[in-house]
This record gives sequence, C-alpha cells and structure tokens, in this order.
Amino acid sequence: MLSKSQIGYIKSLHQKKYRKENGIFIIEGIKSIVEFIQSSYQIHSIYYLAQYQSLLPNLPANIKLFEVNNAELDKISTLQTPQGVLALVHIPKSRNLDISSLKGTFSLVLDGVQDPGNLGTIIRTADWFGFKQIICSNNTVEVYNPKTVQATMGSLSRVNIYYEDLSAFLKDAKVPIFGAVLDGTSIYETKWGTEGIVILGNEGQGITPEIINLITNPVTIPRVGEAESLNVAISAAILCADIIRNLQK
Amino acid sequence: MLSKSQIGYIKSLHQKKYRKENGIFIIEGIKSIVEFIQSSYQIHSIYYLAQYQSLLPNLPANIKLFEVNNAELDKISTLQTPQGVLALVHIPKSRNLDISSLKGTFSLVLDGVQDPGNLGTIIRTADWFGFKQIICSNNTVEVYNPKTVQATMGSLSRVNIYYEDLSAFLKDAKVPIFGAVLDGTSIYETKWGTEGIVILGNEGQGITPEIINLITNPVTIPRVGEAESLNVAISAAILCADIIRNLQK
Repeated sequence: MLSKSQIGYIKSLHQKKYRKENGIFIIEGIKSIVEFIQSSYQIHSIYYLAQYQSLLPNLPANIKLFEVNNAELDKISTLQTPQGVLALVHIPKSRNLDISSLKGTFSLVLDGVQDPGNLGTIIRTADWFGFKQIICSNNTVEVYNPKTVQATMGSLSRVNIYYEDLSAFLKDAKVPIFGAVLDGTSIYETKWGTEGIVILGNEGQGITPEIINLITNPVTIPRVGEAESLNVAISAAILCADIIRNLQK
Repeated sequence: MLSKSQIGYIKSLHQKKYRKENGIFIIEGIKSIVEFIQSSYQIHSIYYLAQYQSLLPNLPANIKLFEVNNAELDKISTLQTPQGVLALVHIPKSRNLDISSLKGTFSLVLDGVQDPGNLGTIIRTADWFGFKQIICSNNTVEVYNPKTVQATMGSLSRVNIYYEDLSAFLKDAKVPIFGAVLDGTSIYETKWGTEGIVILGNEGQGITPEIINLITNPVTIPRVGEAESLNVAISAAILCADIIRNLQK
C-alpha cells in the first residue's frame, strides 16, 4: 500500500524537471531491473505486484521494496501497459569524458537528436555492436526520459552516455571524425580503420554547420529509391554494422 | 468551418474499425499530402489552416477542400502537434500479390510485426533502398494506423504493401528465402545474390516456427556486445543495406 505522497512523488518523476531535482529516474520491467541491479547504477526502491516477487533477485538491504496492487502500479507507471515491476534508480553523477578513451575504439556522437525513442534505440543498437560510449550534444534529448529508457531495453545499464559541448570535445579528439551527411563517401567505399567517432545529427536538420566543419571523413548511406531521408536510429545502425563488418574482416 | 458530424466522422477514422468500415485513412503534413497526390492513391478531402493554402498544389476538382481553424484541426488531428494540413485518403482495393513480381528483385516479408512505428520505419527504409514491396502476415499491424502512416514520412505512397497468408505464398515463391534468426550465417558472410525474400519476425517472438521451416537461407546480424536483441526495424535496415552493398559491388 503506497501513501498518496509516495504516489505523487513517483508521478512527479515522469517529468524531467523533477527527475533532475531529485536525481532519480524510473525503469520498468523485470528484465531491465535485473540488468540495472547487476550494473554500477544504484537502485533506490522497487515497486512490484505480488506475483512478481519471486522473480526479483537477492537485493542489497538498502533497496526499499514495496508490494503494490494493480491500481497503484497504473498510477505510478509511465507505460500504457505496466509490466508488473517498477524501480527508481539514482541518476549517476555526471562524469567527464576521458578523451583518451576514444583511442582504439569507435564512439557515437549525437548532435541534437530530439526523439526519446530514437535515442533509446540508438543505445540498444550500440550495445549490440559493442560500442561502449555515446557522446550527446547538450541539446540532445535527456537520456532518463521514460521513453528513452524503455527503448534501450536494459542497454542503458551497459553503455556510457555523456553530454558535452561537442565542438570543444571534437577539437581535442585525436581520432578520425566520421559524420553521416548526404554528400559524403558511400559507406560501401569507406575505409573505417580501427578507431573513430561517428556523428549523427538531428532528425530534421541533420548535423549543425559548426560540427560539420569538424568532420574529417563525411560518409553517406547510398540511396537507391525515393525516400528523402532515413530515420536517425536506422542510419546509426547501418553505420555501426558497417564498422563491425570492417573490423571482422 | 466544420460541422459536428464532419468532426465526428474524421475522429472516428482514428480507429481501425471505422477506417475499415469507411475505406478511408488519414495522412498529415504538407509533404506527405503532396506525395500522395502524386501517387496512385485517391485523395478524398483536404483540411488546411489558411496559411497553408498556398502550399497546396493544383488539385483535381473531385477533391473536397475545407479551410479549418486551429481548434478544429486539433480535434481531427491524430498528432499531438498537428502539422497544418490533414487529408483523408481512400484505402485502395486490396490487391493480390503477383508471385512473379518476386523474381529479379528483393522483397521484405513481415511475420507479425506489432508496433505501428516499426512498420512505418520499415516502409521508409525500404523506400530509401528501392525495395518496392512488403508482404505482411495477416496478424501484422494495420498499415493505415496513423502512427504507421506518420513514420513512413510519405514513403507509404511509393511502397506496395500486401497482407497474405505467409506460409501459402512462401511455398509458391521461386526465389531464395532469407530470414533473420539468431543462429544463421553471419550477414558478413552471406551471399545474397540478385533476388530473394527477407523475412523479419515479431518484436518479442521473432519468426513463427511454421515460417522458420520455409527459410532457405537463415541469416544473423553478428552480436559483439551484450544487448539481447535488436529492434526489428533496425534489423530490417541492416539487412537492406547489406543487400544493396552486395548488388553495387
């Protein structure tokens, strides 16, 4: 049984303002919750329907547990169809990107991605292909948005996300800077090498002119048909798959 | 100025039941509307804010035009942020797939895709890569769902969508049948050739066992990291990009 104030508190976390104020975000579904428990994230509390209790793993004593009924879960859930278990998780202290971590690997950079689902899908795809970090411009959608968290399908627990002033950090990066544009080299002819940054832009506007100037290797996914553009998460995935193809040669 | 009954009629088309009953679906945004006007689809009527009138192309006389105000557009729109113009479009008579059209090209087959946004993104991606037809199982989400139509970004006007009993049609197909599974040949080692069908399955369950048995060439997108799966629209895009890479060699 939750108090009115508990319900009000959790509902407030549906909004960015209160997530930021409280340093807490919401995750849902047993699979995601188990993955976050196994990660470096700190769980604050878990809210579960009785029939889900047996699915919860052994938990540290500092995690508060609350059994809830369906009506309560409906109120606190961010989903149209709640998944039986919801947890509050502490937002980690924002870390500074270690520029040397860019060497010898590939990292994604997002310049103003606005759709929470796109960001979540990109994180899930990065996790599949073993990309360990994503650097977002400060105007990229917040990663703790419930729609983003849900679309990552647990992958947020494994991929490091940074928010940075992109032009400052790109000027210091000592690896090739690839960027998805409409008039670059075909990805089918691109020599990816073994390290680099891959920049993807905003859904409508693409990469901002200031950042385009910092690209050393512009790349393009060849168009055969007639669509005007590709979804940004789709573009990211095609580039990731191509990079891995090259590394596995 | 719209009558109450006009508003009620258009709002009813937000639901599948009434789209089917009336043979009409909704598209929104000037870009999509222009693309549908140029296609073989028949436009029923167009509802526009005054400032969008000049953007409308010359129209056949049988298309009814209604100037609306913001409050009216808010009521009839399926979007949180309406885009100034909305059109009603006739659902074309369902066509039978001509099995010979599968020869010499690649077609996508969707086995039970449930998310409207995923279907729309797959149609947009197919259009980018020049795939002209998508064959859906009868339990795949309806293509005239407003979220699907929106996610296609106009590409629905150019890609032919069929709903079929998959196992019957696959048995007659005389081209290689590729299917995205977890234990197939790596796409990086797949010989795609010059024609075929590419099957993608349901978001949670993958391809149904009955259909898996009909796959002649199982393929897998290699996993380097730890995500359990990829989004189905992401998988579709990576396979399309790989097929085009092979054709452009």
